[in-house]
Amino acid sequence: MPKEMSRRTLIELSVAGAAALAGAEAKALDRPTLPGDQKIGFAVVGLGKLAQGQIIPGLRKAKSAKLVAVVSGHPDKARRIAAAEGLPADAVYSYDDYDRIAKDPRIQVVYIVLPNSMHADYTIRALKAGKHVLCEKPMATSVAECQAMIDAAKAANRKLMIAYRCHYEPKNLAAMRKMRSGALGKPRLFVTDMGRQADVSDPSDAWRVDKSLAGSGALGDMGIYGISASRYILNEEPVEVRAWANTDPADPRFKTVDDLIAWQFRFPSGAICNGSTSFNYNATMSYELWGEKARLRADPGAFYGGNRYEMVNGGAFTSIDIAEVDQFAREMDWMADVVRGKAPMVSPGEEGMQDMRLISAILESAAKGGTPVKTDWGYRRAVDPAAVVDIVA
Amino acid sequence: MPKEMSRRTLIELSVAGAAALAGAEAKALDRPTLPGDQKIGFAVVGLGKLAQGQIIPGLRKAKSAKLVAVVSGHPDKARRIAAAEGLPADAVYSYDDYDRIAKDPRIQVVYIVLPNSMHADYTIRALKAGKHVLCEKPMATSVAECQAMIDAAKAANRKLMIAYRCHYEPKNLAAMRKMRSGALGKPRLFVTDMGRQADVSDPSDAWRVDKSLAGSGALGDMGIYGISASRYILNEEPVEVRAWANTDPADPRFKTVDDLIAWQFRFPSGAICNGSTSFNYNATMSYELWGEKARLRADPGAFYGGNRYEMVNGGAFTSIDIAEVDQFAREMDWMADVVRGKAPMVSPGEEGMQDMRLISAILESAAKGGTPVKTDWGYRRAVDPAAVVDIVA
Repeated sequence: MPKEMSRRTLIELSVAGAAALAGAEAKALDRPTLPGDQKIGFAVVGLGKLAQGQIIPGLRKAKSAKLVAVVSGHPDKARRIAAAEGLPADAVYSYDDYDRIAKDPRIQVVYIVLPNSMHADYTIRALKAGKHVLCEKPMATSVAECQAMIDAAKAANRKLMIAYRCHYEPKNLAAMRKMRSGALGKPRLFVTDMGRQADVSDPSDAWRVDKSLAGSGALGDMGIYGISASRYILNEEPVEVRAWANTDPADPRFKTVDDLIAWQFRFPSGAICNGSTSFNYNATMSYELWGEKARLRADPGAFYGGNRYEMVNGGAFTSIDIAEVDQFAREMDWMADVVRGKAPMVSPGEEGMQDMRLISAILESAAKGGTPVKTDWGYRRAVDPAAVVDIVA
Repeated sequence: MPKEMSRRTLIELSVAGAAALAGAEAKALDRPTLPGDQKIGFAVVGLGKLAQGQIIPGLRKAKSAKLVAVVSGHPDKARRIAAAEGLPADAVYSYDDYDRIAKDPRIQVVYIVLPNSMHADYTIRALKAGKHVLCEKPMATSVAECQAMIDAAKAANRKLMIAYRCHYEPKNLAAMRKMRSGALGKPRLFVTDMGRQADVSDPSDAWRVDKSLAGSGALGDMGIYGISASRYILNEEPVEVRAWANTDPADPRFKTVDDLIAWQFRFPSGAICNGSTSFNYNATMSYELWGEKARLRADPGAFYGGNRYEMVNGGAFTSIDIAEVDQFAREMDWMADVVRGKAPMVSPGEEGMQDMRLISAILESAAKGGTPVKTDWGYRRAVDPAAVVDIVA
């Protein structure tokens, strides 16, 4: 397989799917943990809760990726974390000297874990510095920013991957394959919900209810999981969306963003999605698919602390048992393998932009009191994760 | 408590709620199984699957109700069932001699279990014959029919109750009380889904996909459970509805009714309901409520073969364990006690008409491609089942 895969190759890979990869080539891609000096070096930008609690621990367990630098606006915190991870003093960057990463050959990938409003700027600067980028979702705060990020990656001839960890998670992949195999029948209804009580006294949460920093409220922060899941499970794109929002005017947390949004997607197959998200109820992300033949329930469906997948028949629930993995390690290993030309790009910038467009369409419909908005912009996924992930990984 | 309770009394009862009934009065209403000659006599009209499989067996277990007559268009089947239940030959009626029930003092209540399009006619004739009526849901096929049924009950000074068994079912009641107690916090989102594959080769299913007999498709047949549940759990009425329908044109079952309908309700509290129903997916009725404080999952939520209710906290599920009852016996006992003046009317014709109005509004919105439809007609539940059922029963 060539080191840099063209779009054409990716499409062929997708079409050929599992069959093409199940043979000798897949075996050749199978590999053990790399020695430290051959791992791809990651700089983590933004040292909030997710970076400290999940991403840096994930890098410790990764097979092909390793932490080589940190970037933070808090020098004390950055130095403390760097020391704990065994990084030298010159592997600590501030936002002021961020562009110096261009001269740091240890860094091959920059992982953007900043508030959403900073994603575009820091991504584009990393690409200009010659680095590949893994960017947290939502990709940015507007479609225009997403396009600028995609353009910058093309101009720099660097990879831009969006951190959709569920595209690489074993139970989500099993659900995708059940759908693709026909075991569920034609899809009829997809239901998904996710929320949590925003705690504005916690600095790592406060920016999430500030539209200028987050772009949207719960929708970009959590709703995006359901938006994405409906698309990767059904393997098709919504053609129409409608939504209602509700915000409690007495709640001081919701001055600039919505409190609750409930949306509906209509898919070309005829399937409908009923989704919701809120910063004012607590619910780990769940989804369910009712096909003509069977029902699948994922609850939790996108939790990194363990998911529960079941096939449901009347009142009887049959568990889908698959070993959990460290989802962050797996995702970063995938990015490392994309950079090394060992794996196809499954969640590129275009994928992030499609969700951003859908988020915009949901907000537009909600602002218009539920008027339907057309959403068929012609986007089609280049690579189906169900066809390649696990085979390559 | 007076034998005939006025509307005013019912409202006072509702307002006073559990407090008023928890004392001496409630105790006075507590009673053992009545001897056979003091039970209220029921005639079952329509001997389909539900009547044979659930309602007649339920009457065998009822404390205050008993089967005294059957009405059917199939004389052989009617005679066979009557004999098996120990009824005399003159307790078998055909549709032709139905009006003769007026002269049968054994019959106090007529239970209508016919195709929906026959509900209004057979209900009104029973009321004119001086009988009380328990009518299956959906109450009828149009709002005008519902109004005519309510008017007929008033004119005849007889009770008209709609067979909403979930208003009397212990786990549903526990969920209502959890909501009323504040344990779930302010309601944010209610999700409910129910469907089954319509089997048109089965005569007891075939009429359900014929609009002239059923009035609507899955919506009246199964969607009504979710419509009703959102209202009795939240204890408020929708003010706006939007819906999308989808029908597979290649499926010969769906010539006159929709295959899938997904709707949204907006409630005065700000809560939103995402609901769906289909004759083209299999799912026992489920519902979930996300409040500001907690999440409740009922899956199944309205099954007569056993329900599963859980409180959900993150990925942890805590079962709400309450002994199952025979839901049909309980509902018919309630009707018997309403007739005897021992229990308030919890699910009157007005309740059935409210669901019929909402069904019409959902169909209207779907026909208009998802345009929102206003639904605040001023209806308010006269008696909250959460406040009285179990205390009286």
